[in-house]
Amino acid sequence: MTVRVGVIGAGWIGQEHIRRLTDVVTGARVTAVTDIDAERAAQAAAGTGARVHADGAALIAADDVDAVLVTSWGPTHAEHVLNAIAAGKPVFCEKPLATAAEDCLRIVEAETAHGRRLVQVGFMRRYDQGYRQMKEVLDSGRIGEPLMVHCAHRNPTVPESYTSDMAALDTAVHEIDVLRWLLDDEIVSVQVVTPRSTSKRFAHLKDPQIMLFETAKGIRVDLEVFVNCQYGYDIQCEAVGDTGLVRLPDPSAVGVRTAGQHSTQVLTDWVGRFADAFDTEFREWIANLAAGNEPTGPTAWDGYAATVITSSTVEALESGHVVATDLKPRPVFYGGAA
Amino acid sequence: MTVRVGVIGAGWIGQEHIRRLTDVVTGARVTAVTDIDAERAAQAAAGTGARVHADGAALIAADDVDAVLVTSWGPTHAEHVLNAIAAGKPVFCEKPLATAAEDCLRIVEAETAHGRRLVQVGFMRRYDQGYRQMKEVLDSGRIGEPLMVHCAHRNPTVPESYTSDMAALDTAVHEIDVLRWLLDDEIVSVQVVTPRSTSKRFAHLKDPQIMLFETAKGIRVDLEVFVNCQYGYDIQCEAVGDTGLVRLPDPSAVGVRTAGQHSTQVLTDWVGRFADAFDTEFREWIANLAAGNEPTGPTAWDGYAATVITSSTVEALESGHVVATDLKPRPVFYGGAA
Amino acid sequence: MTVRVGVIGAGWIGQEHIRRLTDVVTGARVTAVTDIDAERAAQAAAGTGARVHADGAALIAADDVDAVLVTSWGPTHAEHVLNAIAAGKPVFCEKPLATAAEDCLRIVEAETAHGRRLVQVGFMRRYDQGYRQMKEVLDSGRIGEPLMVHCAHRNPTVPESYTSDMAALDTAVHEIDVLRWLLDDEIVSVQVVTPRSTSKRFAHLKDPQIMLFETAKGIRVDLEVFVNCQYGYDIQCEAVGDTGLVRLPDPSAVGVRTAGQHSTQVLTDWVGRFADAFDTEFREWIANLAAGNEPTGPTAWDGYAATVITSSTVEALESGHVVATDLKPRPVFYGGAA
Amino acid sequence: MTVRVGVIGAGWIGQEHIRRLTDVVTGARVTAVTDIDAERAAQAAAGTGARVHADGAALIAADDVDAVLVTSWGPTHAEHVLNAIAAGKPVFCEKPLATAAEDCLRIVEAETAHGRRLVQVGFMRRYDQGYRQMKEVLDSGRIGEPLMVHCAHRNPTVPESYTSDMAALDTAVHEIDVLRWLLDDEIVSVQVVTPRSTSKRFAHLKDPQIMLFETAKGIRVDLEVFVNCQYGYDIQCEAVGDTGLVRLPDPSAVGVRTAGQHSTQVLTDWVGRFADAFDTEFREWIANLAAGNEPTGPTAWDGYAATVITSSTVEALESGHVVATDLKPRPVFYGGAA
Repeated sequence: MTVRVGVIGAGWIGQEHIRRLTDVVTGARVTAVTDIDAERAAQAAAGTGARVHADGAALIAADDVDAVLVTSWGPTHAEHVLNAIAAGKPVFCEKPLATAAEDCLRIVEAETAHGRRLVQVGFMRRYDQGYRQMKEVLDSGRIGEPLMVHCAHRNPTVPESYTSDMAALDTAVHEIDVLRWLLDDEIVSVQVVTPRSTSKRFAHLKDPQIMLFETAKGIRVDLEVFVNCQYGYDIQCEAVGDTGLVRLPDPSAVGVRTAGQHSTQVLTDWVGRFADAFDTEFREWIANLAAGNEPTGPTAWDGYAATVITSSTVEALESGHVVATDLKPRPVFYGGAA
Repeated sequence: MTVRVGVIGAGWIGQEHIRRLTDVVTGARVTAVTDIDAERAAQAAAGTGARVHADGAALIAADDVDAVLVTSWGPTHAEHVLNAIAAGKPVFCEKPLATAAEDCLRIVEAETAHGRRLVQVGFMRRYDQGYRQMKEVLDSGRIGEPLMVHCAHRNPTVPESYTSDMAALDTAVHEIDVLRWLLDDEIVSVQVVTPRSTSKRFAHLKDPQIMLFETAKGIRVDLEVFVNCQYGYDIQCEAVGDTGLVRLPDPSAVGVRTAGQHSTQVLTDWVGRFADAFDTEFREWIANLAAGNEPTGPTAWDGYAATVITSSTVEALESGHVVATDLKPRPVFYGGAA
Repeated sequence: MTVRVGVIGAGWIGQEHIRRLTDVVTGARVTAVTDIDAERAAQAAAGTGARVHADGAALIAADDVDAVLVTSWGPTHAEHVLNAIAAGKPVFCEKPLATAAEDCLRIVEAETAHGRRLVQVGFMRRYDQGYRQMKEVLDSGRIGEPLMVHCAHRNPTVPESYTSDMAALDTAVHEIDVLRWLLDDEIVSVQVVTPRSTSKRFAHLKDPQIMLFETAKGIRVDLEVFVNCQYGYDIQCEAVGDTGLVRLPDPSAVGVRTAGQHSTQVLTDWVGRFADAFDTEFREWIANLAAGNEPTGPTAWDGYAATVITSSTVEALESGHVVATDLKPRPVFYGGAA
Repeated sequence: MTVRVGVIGAGWIGQEHIRRLTDVVTGARVTAVTDIDAERAAQAAAGTGARVHADGAALIAADDVDAVLVTSWGPTHAEHVLNAIAAGKPVFCEKPLATAAEDCLRIVEAETAHGRRLVQVGFMRRYDQGYRQMKEVLDSGRIGEPLMVHCAHRNPTVPESYTSDMAALDTAVHEIDVLRWLLDDEIVSVQVVTPRSTSKRFAHLKDPQIMLFETAKGIRVDLEVFVNCQYGYDIQCEAVGDTGLVRLPDPSAVGVRTAGQHSTQVLTDWVGRFADAFDTEFREWIANLAAGNEPTGPTAWDGYAATVITSSTVEALESGHVVATDLKPRPVFYGGAA
């Protein structure tokens, strides 16, 4: 069975995923596209055989749409996801699930009422081979109980439109999700300390930031977010347990020796770093749907947690204090204790 | 356009490629299968919608076969490839193109007469990301003119049926092809030296072997082939130029520190090592065919060269002498000098 | 000229340094030893030709003592150092210079009054080749202005007598000194966060601890101190600047591949990690004295700063708050602004 | 007891060792120097308190010379070593022990007649920490029985006076010795293959060369000697056994990330690479002599073997053939079978 996907939002990431569903992932076909810019929707649909719809509601309602992919502007996500749930159709929503925690909870409630998982949130790191190897090691007990995680998220540069709160909302959000998954634990508080900012920054921007998370089990995470590090796109993660540690590998690259230096290339682009993870993410999503199974990726609850924790992180940045995340208890539907 | 592929030979590798063309590569469909064991063909076809044909000739003639994939027993390759050329259909042939040099030349002549490339030979290393990075560095001139290449090809174990000549015919053949491509050069002679054999070997087997190749430009290659190295599947390649060197990376793997050791996993399986290369190989082959282009991968001439050079390597092993490969001049059709 | 050294304190580290001055460092001779345990002093002196003195004062006064080495119990350091200054003799004092900040200041004042540097404090990391390479990179501007440093100090185990405050006083003190030197900056505040403690710990011990330092320039340092990490003795340090980063190397070790693993040994012993640094430290100290020069290593001021900062770190651990170090301004004698 | 050393030959390496014995190694003193250039001898002796002698014979005879260090021009080594043996004095001879095999044998006979080891030959790699770690692994059986060794010896450049035979005589000689020691085996034959020479070479020079050695046990060694590799001084060694492999580490160096590259420095100078090995070599030599023990380093027999094997390598280079080394049987005095 080919899964017929309708795509809401035909910007850069929407186009990427249309290409992915068309050229890379077998078993899927993009049959519908919509965008607030109808011309952009038409361009994105060109050559795929997809129809252009006037809006998300029309697309979701279309008979030839089996599943919905939401890649529109963040503030519009909740409405589309809720509509898809109302239509009983599986929906893959790029992060954030919703920009407000209450909207995330409305989604959670709607899905719970539906009684079956429909929602998957686009946290692709869980599909990266390196993180999966880390999780295997953590779950195996080889390094004992995890106590600390040291992370860094570095981008070469960001545009002037990037503001200090985006370090949490757009950047750290990926680590927040992958850490919750790696550790099978919840983040209960956050503090942000701010080194002097890089001289390469725009004056308005606090960059780098060091975010300090504490989990329910008492694990401490330090996460350097540095979005103008100049030298490359570099993701580091090291988990330390009570008998050992495990470290995310750097991407494989040829070693070159010339002129007194041994050197390997550092990526400068996140697309290259996580291209395989995106492919795997969509391959697994489509495979689950094609088999008539529920999605197995990040849930609406994970989307809710990410929105709450990133909001708390912004509050911690702005206040200078430790902020409790005050997440609601995890419902049984999402694996919480009965 | 979906490329409809007929598969001749439904053994392990045939089944792998059927799965790949069905589940991994978009734009292709397996529509026909044959095997000398009809039951095996039927099992391999099950669930793909492919029809089972009585033999290769029937499969090649079928209307719903746009392109042929030959994964049968090596000695049968030439016949199928020649039939495909006669039918004017693109044909992907797993190595070897043919077990005898004369048969390779017959293929070369047939394809040349046809006037357009139809044949691609299954040397997947050219599609491995690490080798591609090496080639980029070599072609860029960053390490100057290449002078030497040091290689190792290690398998954990082989079954008792593996004989000493297979070190060249089945194992080194991959390095022979990828070196010709990396260096854009031809191998003109070969010598084999034999260390004492591993105590883990079967008594009949010379393992390891060290193969010494010389190219037309005077580049020297040493290749350790060690198919019972016990510890893992390990492919090493280092090219040394007159101003620097470039080295194939090890596969990316998490680092773990426990009990006084920093360790990373070494693969034990070639499937894991080259799975991505196989995927890319077929993705590019199908993309070329779907676009109506000639295949861009290893040519019939590359298949001929590999057969001649591996034969010379066996002769060198058995004689203890340096053996000239005596390749015919490369025809203009295959990029040779006019 | 051979420098005749008197050693006050013949415990483990005193014996190590007697051996070092006798067997490893040229240009020095141990001529006098004292210890509160006279028998231990006699044993340590045996075979070196050194005389045993009744106490530190007698040793410092001895005609055949050109320079004094203080390796006694920490709380006694200040008295011996002050006596040596009073005698106008160079004195090398193992850390801490003094356990109380006021005592450090008395030493600073006495040395300043003397008008010439006599005191060197035993922070050996400044003599480690890796840290020296890091400093070269930092000073060269290759990575721009430093913004953050990520450190880890891990010991396999500590005895039950090790208490939570020793994480700062005995362990982190080395990073505190080396960071001040690497960054050419002063630490102005400290906070300590405590992950859940390792299950391998003694119940009284907070281990690991994460110490967060801020410097006068606004550089942020996070330092994991984990003294029961089980797997090895492991020192990590990575400085991130506004255009790049530099990372302390792991000690050089052969790579071994067996049984599906590539592994290198992790040291389990700090002596092995810093043996060369200790040798260099004493070689340079003796060379300076033999040439009639002032010592060039860590100063009494560095000793004062370390004592203040480690005390503040203990206060931060116990209070859970950010603690300002409130260091006095650096005197001109020690390189401060006039 | 201080060992009083007389140094014959005050060129660059002689001066290096005078400095080493004076400033680095405890328990030794240079008391005598001679050189064919008396002025150079005087300069080298200046500041050490050493007397200058008219020639080697006078120096060897001097009462205040306990041990002799021969660092003169290679062809003069044999005479000085024989004189030292005749005088019953320990003698450390830089490689080669003698340039002619017969002279080496005369030394072997003289020492055997003396009945106690006096001679040590200056192969410093046995004192390098990395090679010592390799030997530990090899001797432990962790990688099983060694079958192959892959080596490279690369220098950035050599002067025009360097001739093709020096690749064996001056360069590969170090690997030849260290391999015999690592493997506890003898080299029985050698072949040299010559890649096209680097375009950076002088026209007269065959560079690089690949030397292929076979040992008595059937181990195969390939050694790349490339003395104008431009990029650095780089020593590689990997031993492959029947269950695993062990690889010499690169020297420890900080990692730097800037501008899309992760890089570590490659040494450009052999002095830096083996400075510690030289120090250890002399420290152990002096310690043995001071304790009244025989030297434990490379023997006269090792010196003989190196001279024979390097000569055979030159013959192999010039003839293009496999050359048997035809070493005499190892005498019982040097650990041979009775």
